[in-house]
Amino acid sequence: MFKIGFIKMGNIASSLVVDLALDEIAERTDLEMKVLSFGPKMTKKEAEASAELKSWGPQLVVIIGPNAATPGQTAARELYKDMPTIAISDGPTKKEQRDTLGTGYIILPVDPLIGAKREFLDPAEMALFNSDALKVLSICGAVRLVQEELDRAMTSIAGGETKLPAILATPEKCAERMSFQNPYARAKAVGALHMAQTVASIDAQACFRLKELEAIALAAAAGHEVMRAAARLADEARELEKAGDSVSREPHARSGELMKKVKLLEKPEKI
Amino acid sequence: MFKIGFIKMGNIASSLVVDLALDEIAERTDLEMKVLSFGPKMTKKEAEASAELKSWGPQLVVIIGPNAATPGQTAARELYKDMPTIAISDGPTKKEQRDTLGTGYIILPVDPLIGAKREFLDPAEMALFNSDALKVLSICGAVRLVQEELDRAMTSIAGGETKLPAILATPEKCAERMSFQNPYARAKAVGALHMAQTVASIDAQACFRLKELEAIALAAAAGHEVMRAAARLADEARELEKAGDSVSREPHARSGELMKKVKLLEKPEKI
Amino acid sequence: MFKIGFIKMGNIASSLVVDLALDEIAERTDLEMKVLSFGPKMTKKEAEASAELKSWGPQLVVIIGPNAATPGQTAARELYKDMPTIAISDGPTKKEQRDTLGTGYIILPVDPLIGAKREFLDPAEMALFNSDALKVLSICGAVRLVQEELDRAMTSIAGGETKLPAILATPEKCAERMSFQNPYARAKAVGALHMAQTVASIDAQACFRLKELEAIALAAAAGHEVMRAAARLADEARELEKAGDSVSREPHARSGELMKKVKLLEKPEKI
Amino acid sequence: MFKIGFIKMGNIASSLVVDLALDEIAERTDLEMKVLSFGPKMTKKEAEASAELKSWGPQLVVIIGPNAATPGQTAARELYKDMPTIAISDGPTKKEQRDTLGTGYIILPVDPLIGAKREFLDPAEMALFNSDALKVLSICGAVRLVQEELDRAMTSIAGGETKLPAILATPEKCAERMSFQNPYARAKAVGALHMAQTVASIDAQACFRLKELEAIALAAAAGHEVMRAAARLADEARELEKAGDSVSREPHARSGELMKKVKLLEKPEKI
Amino acid sequence: MFKIGFIKMGNIASSLVVDLALDEIAERTDLEMKVLSFGPKMTKKEAEASAELKSWGPQLVVIIGPNAATPGQTAARELYKDMPTIAISDGPTKKEQRDTLGTGYIILPVDPLIGAKREFLDPAEMALFNSDALKVLSICGAVRLVQEELDRAMTSIAGGETKLPAILATPEKCAERMSFQNPYARAKAVGALHMAQTVASIDAQACFRLKELEAIALAAAAGHEVMRAAARLADEARELEKAGDSVSREPHARSGELMKKVKLLEKPEKI
Amino acid sequence: MFKIGFIKMGNIASSLVVDLALDEIAERTDLEMKVLSFGPKMTKKEAEASAELKSWGPQLVVIIGPNAATPGQTAARELYKDMPTIAISDGPTKKEQRDTLGTGYIILPVDPLIGAKREFLDPAEMALFNSDALKVLSICGAVRLVQEELDRAMTSIAGGETKLPAILATPEKCAERMSFQNPYARAKAVGALHMAQTVASIDAQACFRLKELEAIALAAAAGHEVMRAAARLADEARELEKAGDSVSREPHARSGELMKKVKLLEKPEKI
Repeated sequence: MFKIGFIKMGNIASSLVVDLALDEIAERTDLEMKVLSFGPKMTKKEAEASAELKSWGPQLVVIIGPNAATPGQTAARELYKDMPTIAISDGPTKKEQRDTLGTGYIILPVDPLIGAKREFLDPAEMALFNSDALKVLSICGAVRLVQEELDRAMTSIAGGETKLPAILATPEKCAERMSFQNPYARAKAVGALHMAQTVASIDAQACFRLKELEAIALAAAAGHEVMRAAARLADEARELEKAGDSVSREPHARSGELMKKVKLLEKPEKI
Repeated sequence: MFKIGFIKMGNIASSLVVDLALDEIAERTDLEMKVLSFGPKMTKKEAEASAELKSWGPQLVVIIGPNAATPGQTAARELYKDMPTIAISDGPTKKEQRDTLGTGYIILPVDPLIGAKREFLDPAEMALFNSDALKVLSICGAVRLVQEELDRAMTSIAGGETKLPAILATPEKCAERMSFQNPYARAKAVGALHMAQTVASIDAQACFRLKELEAIALAAAAGHEVMRAAARLADEARELEKAGDSVSREPHARSGELMKKVKLLEKPEKI
Repeated sequence: MFKIGFIKMGNIASSLVVDLALDEIAERTDLEMKVLSFGPKMTKKEAEASAELKSWGPQLVVIIGPNAATPGQTAARELYKDMPTIAISDGPTKKEQRDTLGTGYIILPVDPLIGAKREFLDPAEMALFNSDALKVLSICGAVRLVQEELDRAMTSIAGGETKLPAILATPEKCAERMSFQNPYARAKAVGALHMAQTVASIDAQACFRLKELEAIALAAAAGHEVMRAAARLADEARELEKAGDSVSREPHARSGELMKKVKLLEKPEKI
Repeated sequence: MFKIGFIKMGNIASSLVVDLALDEIAERTDLEMKVLSFGPKMTKKEAEASAELKSWGPQLVVIIGPNAATPGQTAARELYKDMPTIAISDGPTKKEQRDTLGTGYIILPVDPLIGAKREFLDPAEMALFNSDALKVLSICGAVRLVQEELDRAMTSIAGGETKLPAILATPEKCAERMSFQNPYARAKAVGALHMAQTVASIDAQACFRLKELEAIALAAAAGHEVMRAAARLADEARELEKAGDSVSREPHARSGELMKKVKLLEKPEKI
Repeated sequence: MFKIGFIKMGNIASSLVVDLALDEIAERTDLEMKVLSFGPKMTKKEAEASAELKSWGPQLVVIIGPNAATPGQTAARELYKDMPTIAISDGPTKKEQRDTLGTGYIILPVDPLIGAKREFLDPAEMALFNSDALKVLSICGAVRLVQEELDRAMTSIAGGETKLPAILATPEKCAERMSFQNPYARAKAVGALHMAQTVASIDAQACFRLKELEAIALAAAAGHEVMRAAARLADEARELEKAGDSVSREPHARSGELMKKVKLLEKPEKI
Repeated sequence: MFKIGFIKMGNIASSLVVDLALDEIAERTDLEMKVLSFGPKMTKKEAEASAELKSWGPQLVVIIGPNAATPGQTAARELYKDMPTIAISDGPTKKEQRDTLGTGYIILPVDPLIGAKREFLDPAEMALFNSDALKVLSICGAVRLVQEELDRAMTSIAGGETKLPAILATPEKCAERMSFQNPYARAKAVGALHMAQTVASIDAQACFRLKELEAIALAAAAGHEVMRAAARLADEARELEKAGDSVSREPHARSGELMKKVKLLEKPEKI
């Protein structure tokens, strides 16, 4: 049994399903997971507390949350630098910063910053934003990219030759993973992912630059409206694939291998 | 600092945000969380492993996941029966069964079973279903119901007089929590939640009763289509409230108290 | 000329088109219809009045309306028990009750109860609900199921070997009749029909169990919102089939035989 | 008890609900109805057969179906010319033709001709078209106009002073009846009704002027697409009114009087 | 280099892109354009001023704007009657009137009159209406029809054998140009174009017949709602073609020749 | 009569209506326009040809088209530097570059670059993109901003004290002009305008950076999908305002003054 550990520090939409995506029907027999989180907080304190996962003996550790360049995330990576670790985050996006992360990484600028200001966000709006983001990520290939890379990393480690991802997951790279058969579906997916990036920049204004209640609430609301519009465009992408009965599905076999099916009524086959 | 622990065994859509909903902008100073999970699995083995959270000294433990009557969930509750514990699950729904849970509980039949069959579900579809379910739960009041009840339970414990919820969260009860000002928005929310319950019964066919690939894939797909339709109806409910600038928001103050605002451009005030 | 008589006692959405569906362009030369109704009422009084259709000498009588187990419907069937009769209704659904109907039957739990309370329903809302229900029934196969079964029964009677249907028209059975070529279209149709059943249970609360104006109006409104959402999902099913130019059409020939076409610009051919 | 008789010769969408609209929850105690129909056919033969309704002694007879100027409809009216009769039809629209009908009338050019060609229409498509037409008629005021006029005529007859309607129901006149509070809702309703008239002219091409299969199928399909688009625009009108909680409802009291309510959660009051 | 001149007198939606459509990526090397306009006005004064284009020496002149039978348009045509001229307008539609135009012509009854009354129209609404009209014209074939005819006329003139169009661009003729592969897409396009014609007749009421503010504003608003609904139906037509990856594209080569592609990812080829 | 001249060099969506927006119903008596264009081309050659407008004696010249920093646009401005001139363009956006334009300017980064590659764009797609862009610009305030600024500049010149705009029209500044009463409508408008900016950056990839047919076609298609999604979000903004009957309208009086109305059925009043 491969042991994979997850440390969730703070939250991005990918955090919600990163572990579930490795065993979507809970039947894999080759895999054991342990997930440790401290809720939405992501300071050095939480980083330190995350050390406890080590004693479980994970063969791979995934540290996931917003902006991998922040002190908390950095401290957590520091703790795990002696074992195979992958950072999953929405940033940093610049090559030189990514190079200093010191771990494998998947940077998802398409997993956008939420409008995290009390003037706008409450628990329901927070969940709603995550719902829209998750729709984009799942339909447009980001969820699959993360899952495939984790599966691949585990296989490499199990095989004795650790290979960790170092990926900046652009809209185009994410969409490629979904093997869209209809090119307009693919274009819609790429478009939706670009919109998700736009959300991040609008919400960054609300979170970090604006000071007046009205401006903050308006900007955060605008960001969440774009997220919702992106979710709808993603939905259209999937509906186009449904129209051609060409939705790509890649379930895990009990053994952990990936299987594949395209037509809804056909059987999944090992790849 | 109040210490609240979460054990996530298996996944329902509420699991994704149950901890985040207590501190949506990560600024509460009165609260500490620790979350332990083992991914999608929820057998007795995971239950036993969950014992480790005890040593952290939580004042309240939340055990969340599908069907609280299953052996794994039951074993986990058993471990924590000597401390304030709340089970959150999509079942059991019958009064007599709920009464035997032995803990506080919030049963959410509106948080529906996924179409968990390899013939249909892959990681992307799994995430997508959770996105749609989360949209319904967040807009229609289920997320708020859970959050309010946990906040209330913590306050009661901190105040020395433990009071735990025992709630069957029907569509009507959930929708009430959102303080919809437009009655058609409320009706749409109630309708969406009923549809979510319908999803559960369709997916149960796919998961437990059907045996042929075609029938399974078709039923699971039908269930997920209804989930998607429910998400859209929920979205309409919120858009109606936007039309009247009457979306109810209840953010947490830094101190943990609930605040309230209705108009987008007004300031949240303590309740 | 085959003589088929219809007694419409009260109304379900199928009542609206049951006769029209047998001769959709009014050109059949093998068929004569007579329809007798007393509007929305369906008591024993109307049942008795329906006796008059007998004198016309129909070879098959269809009694259609809500809940075939009610006294009025039962009385009407009693009157016609000496001739080939088919009851079409939304209930009863249980096998043991259906067995006691004493006639051929098509039970359509997918043809839902309306929110028939003065607190909510007016003539416009009544017509609107029937519009939405009719959309679901026509797209998803219930209209065709009824029409095919009546055509088949007439053929059997004309051929001297009366065979009457005994069908509980589940979502799956209805959808099968539409020969959907796109499996997602079929899944959407199945989903929409399940939603229609959900409507029935919500409206039943409004009609029979709730007592307060607010609760009644809210429940009835919720039921009608779900009906509207079901109509939209059904519409999506048909749009998917349009995308593949694979809408199944089965018009009647002048002779009454069924014809068939799939591509929009192809000629219908006898089956 | 007022006795009102209906003769349905052929079908327009208004035919489906004309009787039901007078007693939408089947509780009126002042009214008795009898409906006679011969299905979709509307020749002189059916007209003659309709004579039988006379013996029931109706105080008012409504003859409803396509084009009141056709021989069948004319023959039927002839039969009933000695008693209060109202013709309801989609034509004729010209004043001089309407003047020769010899009865009260409500001409509804907004209740459009169906694409009644075997090359396109089958029972399911027929029901679907009626669903869309009924949505427009119910939301935009045509159903209410018909119902109000019949109620008024019955009152006049019961009061001893027969007054029958002579109305060409234009889009504007229909929309007025719905008392839209939002002017954009009203504009959408007017627009949808104009679209319904456009449908009639497109379908007339398909039915009467085109000769080639391709052209017929294409025109009929175009007509039905416009009908579907009109239904959607009508739906938007109602959603706008929902946004303001200003949907006008006029249910019948048990006594037959009209009541009125606007807010969803308020009680209907006698007008 | 072929020299084509445009005189835009007043505005119809086709005016906006008539020149751009001949060189959509601004790379044609065989063509020179000059466009002269005087904004929205279209009286004789503007007609006279348009004489100045002559001195540029155009080989073909296009005079475009509302109703070619008005005095201003007529005066402009008079000025250019000694050179190849094509009138593009929404009217007149009658054959006998078209025959007296004295030039080549393309009459587009599908390019509808705007609701040009101060009681309703402001600059934003004007632009919005043109947006909706342009969507219908571009998707449904009217833009292509105009462009193809102008290209053809230029080729004929360049080849020494002037041939000018004399076309009444009905919905069917426009849609034919788009080579829709999905017949339902074509039907939707035809339907949308019919709706555009309906808009013209509604707006004509607002512009010319109604006198009261309320009636004018309501009619104009209804016209614009139908335009918006037509744009949406057109959009559906294109989405259906996207579903089949069969959108017909006909870009200009640098040399001015038309090229053709159908699949999104294939190369355009000379026809 | 004020004389305003327009030179349209190349095309942005604002070009389509910039002149029409000053006199939307063609009744202003205080204003004369002359528009000169050379179609889509915008090189120095067209700039030189534009000199001819001078002789007409305009009091204000507007030069509009893509990227004001390109040689053609620069050459045109050079020609008119001795008279009041306003450049309207989608760029440059940087302050230092804008400062060197040497004229008044309105820079609209929200009026996005089209996917101008033969591999994707044909005349119909070009018109379609402009339709979507125009929808965003008209609903979200960019059309009004341009129109108000031109009106203001003309007034200043007529009053003898020339004041020309120097505006970078951000999403927020545009939306402000529409006086949205519903804050969610405003947020949607802001979001749609941000999406339009995203379109520009996606299309820039397609136009300038990508080299392979597949990548170009895909990127251009993605850009146009985002534009279409932005148009839909803008449409939602307007529908929200319709729901509150609060659409802001500012028509021109015959005298050229701006008037104002908010409720659909109220009279416009001078501001």
